[in-house]
Amino acid sequence: MIRNILSAAISALILCAYGCNQPETDNDMCDKSAMQPDGIVRLSKIKVHPEYLEEYLRYAVEVGTTSLETEPGVLTMYAVADKEDPCNITILETYASAEAYRSHIASEHFQKYKQGTLHMVDSLVLDDVTPLNPDNRIINFIDRK
Amino acid sequence: MIRNILSAAISALILCAYGCNQPETDNDMCDKSAMQPDGIVRLSKIKVHPEYLEEYLRYAVEVGTTSLETEPGVLTMYAVADKEDPCNITILETYASAEAYRSHIASEHFQKYKQGTLHMVDSLVLDDVTPLNPDNRIINFIDRK
Repeated sequence: MIRNILSAAISALILCAYGCNQPETDNDMCDKSAMQPDGIVRLSKIKVHPEYLEEYLRYAVEVGTTSLETEPGVLTMYAVADKEDPCNITILETYASAEAYRSHIASEHFQKYKQGTLHMVDSLVLDDVTPLNPDNRIINFIDRK
Repeated sequence: MIRNILSAAISALILCAYGCNQPETDNDMCDKSAMQPDGIVRLSKIKVHPEYLEEYLRYAVEVGTTSLETEPGVLTMYAVADKEDPCNITILETYASAEAYRSHIASEHFQKYKQGTLHMVDSLVLDDVTPLNPDNRIINFIDRK
């Protein structure tokens, strides 16, 4: 039963990811934009000062969740920490267009994260990347079950 | 119409990703296993000798596609190249379990890639990682349209 509900919610979400409007689902994800030629795929590499790690993670999870759930042009926001050194964070970010990226960095939730964590971040590298196989697709969502 | 077919195929795929068996779809993706406690999320970082880059990419796309389409325990295999230096490749790999990983590296397609590209690879770093938010989910598939 739970699986059926979850599947229905995700199926509707997937439909949204392909650009059509759908009724609201149990999932809090917004409709998503289609990837445009000026879309961005990026690996953001962040080194956090160890004394702020716990606090930083709260900010990072919050901004990632809000961005993914509420911004049509934020297609992925998947953040991971190295097991060997959890202060090394990598985020796979995908923006549907350059405009979607500008909208993201202007958003209240991103500015809260950015200003709130400036003193916690030791280094930040933004590596824009190209998927090797254009047919290799990712759908990224928050599963609130 | 195409969108509907694609959506139906992907919806079926999503159902598969949550562990149930589904009829075949237009998509060539196999049923997927559920993530287990000993599952692995990894960033593999590969530096390729420039003179072999083109040939390496063919191997990498082939093994990624085959792994994702045919291995139930390979949940993501998303490879990207740095725009600034395309010889720097990063692959987001997710294995449903330690056994799924062992099965992957024992597979014929992986061994073809591994043995075929040994002389092309300058360095290889396997960084096991932990997603910051356990509710942040990725579904990865090959879209053959």
